[in-house]
Amino acid sequence: MADHIYKKIELVGSSPDGFEEAVKNALARAQKTIRNMRWFEVAETRGYIEKDKIGHWQVTLKIGFTLEE
Amino acid sequence: MADHIYKKIELVGSSPDGFEEAVKNALARAQKTIRNMRWFEVAETRGYIEKDKIGHWQVTLKIGFTLEE
Amino acid sequence: MADHIYKKIELVGSSPDGFEEAVKNALARAQKTIRNMRWFEVAETRGYIEKDKIGHWQVTLKIGFTLEE
Amino acid sequence: MADHIYKKIELVGSSPDGFEEAVKNALARAQKTIRNMRWFEVAETRGYIEKDKIGHWQVTLKIGFTLEE
Amino acid sequence: MADHIYKKIELVGSSPDGFEEAVKNALARAQKTIRNMRWFEVAETRGYIEKDKIGHWQVTLKIGFTLEE
Amino acid sequence: MADHIYKKIELVGSSPDGFEEAVKNALARAQKTIRNMRWFEVAETRGYIEKDKIGHWQVTLKIGFTLEE
Amino acid sequence: MADHIYKKIELVGSSPDGFEEAVKNALARAQKTIRNMRWFEVAETRGYIEKDKIGHWQVTLKIGFTLEE
Amino acid sequence: MADHIYKKIELVGSSPDGFEEAVKNALARAQKTIRNMRWFEVAETRGYIEKDKIGHWQVTLKIGFTLEE
Amino acid sequence: MADHIYKKIELVGSSPDGFEEAVKNALARAQKTIRNMRWFEVAETRGYIEKDKIGHWQVTLKIGFTLEE
Amino acid sequence: MADHIYKKIELVGSSPDGFEEAVKNALARAQKTIRNMRWFEVAETRGYIEKDKIGHWQVTLKIGFTLEE
Amino acid sequence: MADHIYKKIELVGSSPDGFEEAVKNALARAQKTIRNMRWFEVAETRGYIEKDKIGHWQVTLKIGFTLEE
Amino acid sequence: MADHIYKKIELVGSSPDGFEEAVKNALARAQKTIRNMRWFEVAETRGYIEKDKIGHWQVTLKIGFTLEE
Repeated sequence: MADHIYKKIELVGSSPDGFEEAVKNALARAQKTIRNMRWFEVAETRGYIEKDKIGHWQVTLKIGFTLEE
Repeated sequence: MADHIYKKIELVGSSPDGFEEAVKNALARAQKTIRNMRWFEVAETRGYIEKDKIGHWQVTLKIGFTLEE
Repeated sequence: MADHIYKKIELVGSSPDGFEEAVKNALARAQKTIRNMRWFEVAETRGYIEKDKIGHWQVTLKIGFTLEE
Repeated sequence: MADHIYKKIELVGSSPDGFEEAVKNALARAQKTIRNMRWFEVAETRGYIEKDKIGHWQVTLKIGFTLEE
Repeated sequence: MADHIYKKIELVGSSPDGFEEAVKNALARAQKTIRNMRWFEVAETRGYIEKDKIGHWQVTLKIGFTLEE
Repeated sequence: MADHIYKKIELVGSSPDGFEEAVKNALARAQKTIRNMRWFEVAETRGYIEKDKIGHWQVTLKIGFTLEE
Repeated sequence: MADHIYKKIELVGSSPDGFEEAVKNALARAQKTIRNMRWFEVAETRGYIEKDKIGHWQVTLKIGFTLEE
Repeated sequence: MADHIYKKIELVGSSPDGFEEAVKNALARAQKTIRNMRWFEVAETRGYIEKDKIGHWQVTLKIGFTLEE
Repeated sequence: MADHIYKKIELVGSSPDGFEEAVKNALARAQKTIRNMRWFEVAETRGYIEKDKIGHWQVTLKIGFTLEE
Repeated sequence: MADHIYKKIELVGSSPDGFEEAVKNALARAQKTIRNMRWFEVAETRGYIEKDKIGHWQVTLKIGFTLEE
Repeated sequence: MADHIYKKIELVGSSPDGFEEAVKNALARAQKTIRNMRWFEVAETRGYIEKDKIGHWQVTLKIGFTLEE
Repeated sequence: MADHIYKKIELVGSSPDGFEEAVKNALARAQKTIRNMRWFEVAETRGYIEKDKIGHWQVTLKIGFTLEE
């Protein structure tokens, strides 16, 4: 692990169901094209309001994954 | 939408029930006096502790709404 | 001037025509309800993209104005 | 207290007499129109110089107050 | 309360079950050795990914407690 | 729109002609390989000086675009 | 001094009498259990409001002290 | 270029004509006393308002220049 | 005033007597070599501790002054 | 150079041998797939501890490279 | 590992020999009283100058360690 | 020392040989014109890449020195 190189990308996940679901949606999409995801960092949390209620949450994540040799 | 002007205000919502409920409480109070709320941004998350447990969550939000012409 | 009290509010101005026009649009709207505006600070600059071009600029401003006695 | 909603506004207080006086002047002005002020946070401290001395201090505060139901 | 002195420490709580559970786990551990906990502030939220899903959430908290005389 | 996932990338656009042109040049290059660009955020503005004048502006942007399913 | 190791802790001092007194109260409490205090850094200044006046100032400090060998 | 040492200074340029003109005015003044200016970084953008319109823009720059041997 | 160019420098003032005195000492020293000082901004406040008490306050200021034509 | 567009990516390099080696390892991996790397910025420096010593350094870099036309 | 709780403390390490040695000195001192150190984060790097050369480096670290059950 | 006034300037040092050498080069240049340098703070670390390797490191420093009476 001492020589691993990681790449970090920035995704924004959305969900009408809550903060954690927005994170999970981003990861579910990311795993379609990225292998070896290792961690995420929450960079920003916001939401869009429709008719005075939360329409959907929107969470900006940095996702780190191992670059293969 | 290209010429819209928005105003942002800062509210702090509280709830004994969790992070998302604190956000919802702030929006529920805001909609009594503000029309056309469009989005919120989470600026700060904290909580007060009573008898070694979370007494209530407290979330500082910026809320953006459209200013009418 | 030494005893003046100022209030700062946060507005988001938009314009399809550019960065400075977005600022001016925010000020034009603000002066309808605020007297004695004194300064603004640019807090954030962004834009929305339509068909691969800038649809409109969006500039978040803090506007300071003198509170009357 | 667990369900309270607070609003935060941003004021700039001035005083030729010092840092604390600038804070007090802002609060004295704020209480004319705001009820239920609960706390303040110092966001920025600066001053204007006249003839090589401090003409007046200028302190930017965020003031939190309880929104009534 | 006006003369109270508080100490703030920084803990990182983890949980496979979610953001709020990670906060609660940190507080549950802290109360074993700290008395008079008063508030917490969320400083950083991240998570570790196992097999393309969230293995556990990890939340960095600052916890404030009253120092006894 | 509630379930959309966005990716954000960071580009630096340059132009001898001004701040807005540097932004536009970055977007013009980005649209060659990215579809569905939605917004940009200005992260940093700087410029290079040649013979005591602005040789070119250089603007760092974050660009958000929709990830297709 | 070149090989000294310091530890920094975070305290919040309070005082109804002013900003400097809040700092002094924190140091007075800290010296009961810490030896070799060397410096402090003001991290945050706030206050609580009672009946429209400052009830007490509250200053968050980082205090650095030499760790003995 | 690998051994060059640069100094950075901080100037505030003003102009009634716009953001870019304020930058240019600062550089025009700087070149009277500084040689070998290489780059600038925009640190802060603000403006002063007169009669509800922008009286002048005010841009804080850091300017980097090569120190001669 | 619309075309004025200002320079900002960074000084650290010290005083055993308090926060405001440290600011004043910095300005008193600055005025020996700088003309046309206009404002200061407090960037950092700290202090050195001697025998468990504040030995001296130390305040980092940015000072802005008008550059003559 | 005035019209160049750059892209910035974020990598984390690791090395048991030191801070600079972690940077070099990230660049060595990056050059396998990226052409025209121009600069890097150190965003974060940390390390993992094994048996009370530094097991490996871990440095987060932003790497800028020229996008070809 | 999913339920681990970590504590983070802040130390300042010094060394006349360099940046990495200052980090190592802080860890060497910390392991005398802390068990289960897991990682460190570099928060601030500075140095003291004696006779125009670096007298010693001074690095502020946050150190994370596992709290035992 | 309690009444000393310090000035801080910002330099960028470069070196092909490493991070510490870039710092030392900045100090070596600074001592040609500045007396009584006391400390430095690392503000930013970056490097330029040539042929996929580090061409030179570039470190932005703030240097503090005592102003003579």
